[in-house]
Amino acid sequence: MQLGLIGLGRMGGNMRERLRAAGHEVVGFDHNADKTDVANLAELVEKLAAPRVVWTMVPAGKITEDTIDELAGLLSEGDIIIDGGNSKFTDDQPRADRLKPKGIHYLDVGVSGGIWGFTNGYALMVGGDAEIVEHCRPIFDALKPAGQFGFAHAGTHGAGHYAKMVHNGIEYGLMHAYAEGFEILEASELVENVPAVIKSWREGSVVKSWLLDLLDRALDEDPKLANIRGYAEDTGEGRWTVDEAVRLAVPAHVISASLFARFASRQDDSPAMKAVAALRNQFGGHAVKR
Amino acid sequence: MQLGLIGLGRMGGNMRERLRAAGHEVVGFDHNADKTDVANLAELVEKLAAPRVVWTMVPAGKITEDTIDELAGLLSEGDIIIDGGNSKFTDDQPRADRLKPKGIHYLDVGVSGGIWGFTNGYALMVGGDAEIVEHCRPIFDALKPAGQFGFAHAGTHGAGHYAKMVHNGIEYGLMHAYAEGFEILEASELVENVPAVIKSWREGSVVKSWLLDLLDRALDEDPKLANIRGYAEDTGEGRWTVDEAVRLAVPAHVISASLFARFASRQDDSPAMKAVAALRNQFGGHAVKR
Amino acid sequence: MQLGLIGLGRMGGNMRERLRAAGHEVVGFDHNADKTDVANLAELVEKLAAPRVVWTMVPAGKITEDTIDELAGLLSEGDIIIDGGNSKFTDDQPRADRLKPKGIHYLDVGVSGGIWGFTNGYALMVGGDAEIVEHCRPIFDALKPAGQFGFAHAGTHGAGHYAKMVHNGIEYGLMHAYAEGFEILEASELVENVPAVIKSWREGSVVKSWLLDLLDRALDEDPKLANIRGYAEDTGEGRWTVDEAVRLAVPAHVISASLFARFASRQDDSPAMKAVAALRNQFGGHAVKR
Amino acid sequence: MQLGLIGLGRMGGNMRERLRAAGHEVVGFDHNADKTDVANLAELVEKLAAPRVVWTMVPAGKITEDTIDELAGLLSEGDIIIDGGNSKFTDDQPRADRLKPKGIHYLDVGVSGGIWGFTNGYALMVGGDAEIVEHCRPIFDALKPAGQFGFAHAGTHGAGHYAKMVHNGIEYGLMHAYAEGFEILEASELVENVPAVIKSWREGSVVKSWLLDLLDRALDEDPKLANIRGYAEDTGEGRWTVDEAVRLAVPAHVISASLFARFASRQDDSPAMKAVAALRNQFGGHAVKR
Repeated sequence: MQLGLIGLGRMGGNMRERLRAAGHEVVGFDHNADKTDVANLAELVEKLAAPRVVWTMVPAGKITEDTIDELAGLLSEGDIIIDGGNSKFTDDQPRADRLKPKGIHYLDVGVSGGIWGFTNGYALMVGGDAEIVEHCRPIFDALKPAGQFGFAHAGTHGAGHYAKMVHNGIEYGLMHAYAEGFEILEASELVENVPAVIKSWREGSVVKSWLLDLLDRALDEDPKLANIRGYAEDTGEGRWTVDEAVRLAVPAHVISASLFARFASRQDDSPAMKAVAALRNQFGGHAVKR
Repeated sequence: MQLGLIGLGRMGGNMRERLRAAGHEVVGFDHNADKTDVANLAELVEKLAAPRVVWTMVPAGKITEDTIDELAGLLSEGDIIIDGGNSKFTDDQPRADRLKPKGIHYLDVGVSGGIWGFTNGYALMVGGDAEIVEHCRPIFDALKPAGQFGFAHAGTHGAGHYAKMVHNGIEYGLMHAYAEGFEILEASELVENVPAVIKSWREGSVVKSWLLDLLDRALDEDPKLANIRGYAEDTGEGRWTVDEAVRLAVPAHVISASLFARFASRQDDSPAMKAVAALRNQFGGHAVKR
Repeated sequence: MQLGLIGLGRMGGNMRERLRAAGHEVVGFDHNADKTDVANLAELVEKLAAPRVVWTMVPAGKITEDTIDELAGLLSEGDIIIDGGNSKFTDDQPRADRLKPKGIHYLDVGVSGGIWGFTNGYALMVGGDAEIVEHCRPIFDALKPAGQFGFAHAGTHGAGHYAKMVHNGIEYGLMHAYAEGFEILEASELVENVPAVIKSWREGSVVKSWLLDLLDRALDEDPKLANIRGYAEDTGEGRWTVDEAVRLAVPAHVISASLFARFASRQDDSPAMKAVAALRNQFGGHAVKR
Repeated sequence: MQLGLIGLGRMGGNMRERLRAAGHEVVGFDHNADKTDVANLAELVEKLAAPRVVWTMVPAGKITEDTIDELAGLLSEGDIIIDGGNSKFTDDQPRADRLKPKGIHYLDVGVSGGIWGFTNGYALMVGGDAEIVEHCRPIFDALKPAGQFGFAHAGTHGAGHYAKMVHNGIEYGLMHAYAEGFEILEASELVENVPAVIKSWREGSVVKSWLLDLLDRALDEDPKLANIRGYAEDTGEGRWTVDEAVRLAVPAHVISASLFARFASRQDDSPAMKAVAALRNQFGGHAVKR
């Protein structure tokens, strides 16, 4: 099957390779001349036979919106745009509505798997109409893992990105649970070999997981994580998950705490703790650090 | 190798089978006449050749203490007691100290794996002297999973139970991260097929894990978990993990929130929320439910 | 000074009385015929001399928007609309922009004080242009408490409602801190007279506050809060505060936990805890409640 | 009334002055020669007429235990020891039991008020037998604030320190609620004058409190808290409160989050966030800071 693929970075580049390895014909576009197959989107569209399927894998927000709008001007009735980037789920229905008058179909796909997806396959959560999903099935089948899992048609427009958002919210919580356990073990006087304990959990334990395998891998490289600063960015999905929890009145102590810990990791000093220190000084005469 | 095994419940009974399947000779004792191999601990000790190894797998606290004390009176110099139950790590060094004058060695083992351990093997975290650990290695090798993981000598007396405690603390956090994600998905208007989304994560996703496989399994049986009440006991390790975090000055927002959620799940009404409702009524005239 | 006041409920009705007691002329409108001074907004506007000041004190959202739009059609250049309701801060600048072409000025005011404001005065946080704030100062002076505090010009359009929003977020946290302390005292075996302890804190202690006085008052009426259910609504500001914390990357563990506790207080059963119970059953064979 | 007072630091020194101002005869002991009235405890005891009342106000833990043990050797049947320091409530019953065979009575008193107690009076929470409490009432009356509040007989031995512990746990939560609100206001683009907003809350608002007054005072001195580092020690009571919440199965999200924030404020780097950063690098190739 033919696919136009826009954005050949860490994710898109690997996806092109995985799709080609599965026998699909991928026409890739990237602003990086070393990576791109075509000079521009017009040439990309030209190289595909109708009905065309074009997958965007570019940064969420304005770049994705602009790319989809440019594509909308180049594509024809019956063509399909798939956004596999980290768009916010609220962007999907408006996009589908914008494309519909031109007869262009739209799918949103949440893609999980990171840099391991090329080898292991990607978990795909798709939003949109069932018949369009079916039409694109060969592409999804090539991207997903070889086993029986890794693909879901989650619902209507936005459901794919929504499912991926919650996936990432959970991911925050899982990582932080391991992280707290790691910190307690590191602080303990009794456990002499923390990496060995974590390694032991990889089989037989209740906490075995792929993330645990990766933590073990990181500890193999750096047993105390001495060369890594405790600093973590966030890419939007964690925030949106908490916003959704708030909107839907779902108590989300764990996911929000994981998100807040990332915020704190990026602060040189905590304004809140300045206020606490000031208050302790005011009522108790406790010394403050200046 | 010979092993005396005391406590043949859900965990101990399966362990006896797994050990026997591996060719070990297990003499089991249980108060349940249908399960026990011997009439009492004296007979159990009698049936083992010195140096004997006896593994206790009974409820933590008084029952374990009493069992170990009774064993101490029956065993001889050079024999080994292993406690594989959910004892608190602070009990282990005092036990080792009590047994030492009699020349009896002691190991504490944290055992993870639940009812799946018989098939998959158990993850074992061991505390105690290296030479005693080595002596018992054939037992550990039979209990652990077939692969390269699932066993760690964590440190001195108590380190095995400590590692298992932290393992369970992490487990609380992992479960609650999935649980919050499940609740958000259930509340969402967009995601039409929550079980399908969760199933899709089993391969390729960043959140794939054994707990996720089990959540999928539970949803296969009951897609809305309609027949399960949101009520969860706790068995001590989660509380001890939070106590340790507090003692060691480790911020443990995620693990403590998971523990507190269990506490809340067991309350018919929340005294704290009564106070909140009373306050809102006092200052704002907001209605209270009576 | 003359003031048109729309909405004569629990808050607005008391404000009318407090303003009149201070010598101001208040023309009030309410849909409740027993409370209103005029038949409709047109009559209210007619009764005021230009430049008119009209204060809306109606439910946030559509009712407030509709009221302001209707007023905009009735008022003249140089008149002033003040919204003292619980509007979201993001609504204020658009309103000001909508009113500006007609020469109508706009202020947003966060009003705190609840049902005690009539007696104690209201804390007022105002957003908008300084000269308009000054023009309305006699109204603010009458509504605020007698002392030197209780009024702030917080900033431009929206700043008043923003300050009130954060005020309420803090309020959630304060209430829940007392609530948790109350629950621990209630659960303790040592403290025999919980209300006496809480009463003692009203003077001399670090935790003395107006909310504490009210908690003591509630305990005077019902020492165990036995007649109050642990159930609390939320009116928007707490959610917006958490959304803002998320947007601004501020760790807000305390305020979000207080909000989540309210969410939980309204659930008959917790979907998240169903998932936890299901998982414990799956891996450990732990019984579930059905 | 006569009182022996041991420990004349920030708290004890002020208490001596307040008691003397009320007409009581205080014999104070301190290792600081500039402060002490007597050379040693023997001389202190000698100067008091039986039945003697001696109040310890020294650091909790070994120093308090040693002081009480030394006093026990010097005092006589019918004398009374009062510990007003920050002892853990679990120490009180054992002390009372140790003193009882000698006929020495014991009271534990939680003292709140900080450096303001000299002027405002101290809130006192007392544990012990009612008749002993009554005997010491003149001392309590002099130390407590002038109004009707500020004193409670909380229960049996330990109840005084227990009530003070929970008081401090609440204090942590209150401070952190204000602190989070302060940080959100500081981060906001709309609120131009944060100190003015906070000052306005001192009257009329729902969040008015003594701690708020102190926050306003701190902001008067340093409107951005620019000269204070966000660093806060903890003195034990917060930890014990969380431990008690865990023991009693009380969900204490707010108090524990406030405690954990203090822990985090003292870390140069977060081991937990190192693990999160390592994991993000492993699965997503996200850059880590080194």
